[in-house]
Amino acid sequence: MKGIHFDGTTMRYRTDLPEPVRTAGEALIRVRYAGVCRTDREIARGYMRFTGIPGHEFIGTVVETDDPSLVGASVTGDINLACHDCPTCAQGRYHHCPTRTTLGIFRKDGVMAEYATLPARNLYVLPEGLSPVHGAFIEPLAAALEIVSVRPFAPELSVLVIGDGILSYLIVGVLSLRGNAVTLIGKHDDKMRIFGERYPRISLRSHRDGVGDDRSRFPVVVEASGTPGGFSLALDHIEPLGTLFAKSTFAGALTVDFNRVVVDEITVIGTRCGPFAPAIELLAQGLVDPLPFVEAVISLEEAARVLSDLSGTYKKYVVECTR
Amino acid sequence: MKGIHFDGTTMRYRTDLPEPVRTAGEALIRVRYAGVCRTDREIARGYMRFTGIPGHEFIGTVVETDDPSLVGASVTGDINLACHDCPTCAQGRYHHCPTRTTLGIFRKDGVMAEYATLPARNLYVLPEGLSPVHGAFIEPLAAALEIVSVRPFAPELSVLVIGDGILSYLIVGVLSLRGNAVTLIGKHDDKMRIFGERYPRISLRSHRDGVGDDRSRFPVVVEASGTPGGFSLALDHIEPLGTLFAKSTFAGALTVDFNRVVVDEITVIGTRCGPFAPAIELLAQGLVDPLPFVEAVISLEEAARVLSDLSGTYKKYVVECTR
Repeated sequence: MKGIHFDGTTMRYRTDLPEPVRTAGEALIRVRYAGVCRTDREIARGYMRFTGIPGHEFIGTVVETDDPSLVGASVTGDINLACHDCPTCAQGRYHHCPTRTTLGIFRKDGVMAEYATLPARNLYVLPEGLSPVHGAFIEPLAAALEIVSVRPFAPELSVLVIGDGILSYLIVGVLSLRGNAVTLIGKHDDKMRIFGERYPRISLRSHRDGVGDDRSRFPVVVEASGTPGGFSLALDHIEPLGTLFAKSTFAGALTVDFNRVVVDEITVIGTRCGPFAPAIELLAQGLVDPLPFVEAVISLEEAARVLSDLSGTYKKYVVECTR
Repeated sequence: MKGIHFDGTTMRYRTDLPEPVRTAGEALIRVRYAGVCRTDREIARGYMRFTGIPGHEFIGTVVETDDPSLVGASVTGDINLACHDCPTCAQGRYHHCPTRTTLGIFRKDGVMAEYATLPARNLYVLPEGLSPVHGAFIEPLAAALEIVSVRPFAPELSVLVIGDGILSYLIVGVLSLRGNAVTLIGKHDDKMRIFGERYPRISLRSHRDGVGDDRSRFPVVVEASGTPGGFSLALDHIEPLGTLFAKSTFAGALTVDFNRVVVDEITVIGTRCGPFAPAIELLAQGLVDPLPFVEAVISLEEAARVLSDLSGTYKKYVVECTR
């Protein structure tokens, strides 16, 4: 089949990939659209030492599975493949199963191909009204929703979002629906313009030349820049006793002045995945619209090129894996 | 007066220090005992760029203040000197007043001298039954209590404490009173022995040669080692979705693999100061006894020597400032 393969060094478009074979309990899925996530770029840089087919944001159609009623359904899926048999899973903490694999990220081929497999229990059947392109955004919108799910904060609090990528865009969408006033620090004029057009009440600040004299502080800060500098910037702008949601993962370690976390008694909450059901709801109702932020819908062949060029700015692409 | 003075380079015992003059609202206090804290050692290394009289753990007697009923009272005090006039203070967050000074730590002379001053509103009058030496431990015990105050966790959870200093000793004391099972990772046989004698049910592990094969994980980890390596060790031993209390401050930055905080969805809570009232209660009732951990009661002159020698292991000393 056609797809993208990462050998640990290079992202390559290939037409000779073997079609995946589903194991017991798995579904074979024909992938319709996949999203290119910043994590895929980090994988191209060595994150998680992944090799295989990347991609974890998708919408597709079930081709084959144990439950005949699922065949033909339009689905997306939870990216964590848990054992469902250990003490962690027994507590319902499937996302943290110690022997889990992760779709397109860790020891499990992902969705940037014509076909993929995923355990049927991981699937979410999508409502009819949902546009297929929107379907590729369920996973990242779920991740965005996690910050208001893991430890909800009051809607009257001002929130600073750091980073101007798609995750920040979805987070701002979620926060706007709650009524939180949002300030965003970004680096890219073209992206900031999209934020401003879609969310006219947002306060936008450019961070190309450092913070400078901007000493404003916020009770809630979301670090979603995907860059090592984002965490320090977050500490520069968080109020004492504030809550800092950390969303960025990247290849490499981070050097921070951790004294400030202790002295200012900051709570740092690491979050990764989030709840799919409300993400599907918000997209199906059209309350969050990711499309203004999408650079283009591209082919698998073009996506391999995009993922091979790590020099430019990250942009959000949707990959048409099959028609 | 006699006291210790730090000029930014050297901790010196001096007999020619000017007696402090109380400002409006302040009390003049004759210091009885002061504790030598690890933070004082970090100050000797440049932490907070402090100069002046160090020391922030104390018990003393009020000599002079606006309220005559306070004169002669045995007191300790909150180390944060807030303005009580800004939006942060209006919210009751005095410990985070942006223009605050901190006793013996930041722009306010401390207690390692015969006399010190502190706003009368910062004082806690101590009960009669409390031994004066115990009084020097109210501030650190309050800091220990903060981990069960800021975000209480269930007493059935196993807790890992990292570090074998006095703060860890007081934290273990607090945890034992709640029924939490406690494991401690330390480096010093002599200190570990004291933990074992006082808390026979504690599980002790030595960490001189790295973690090795020890892959045990805990839902709650308290990092109180006061060393840069403690945080990474905490991440090695925390369960996914766990809570990590960060208590260590030190001169310098920290390099950590922060991806693990995000991927494992850890909550990191920085905590510094804590509630004095329960600390006074526990000491007055004899439920926490710091004395087995005290190396010796020493003079101001000896304390200056102890604080000048940063080569050896930190040990807990109590300084007799006046008789």
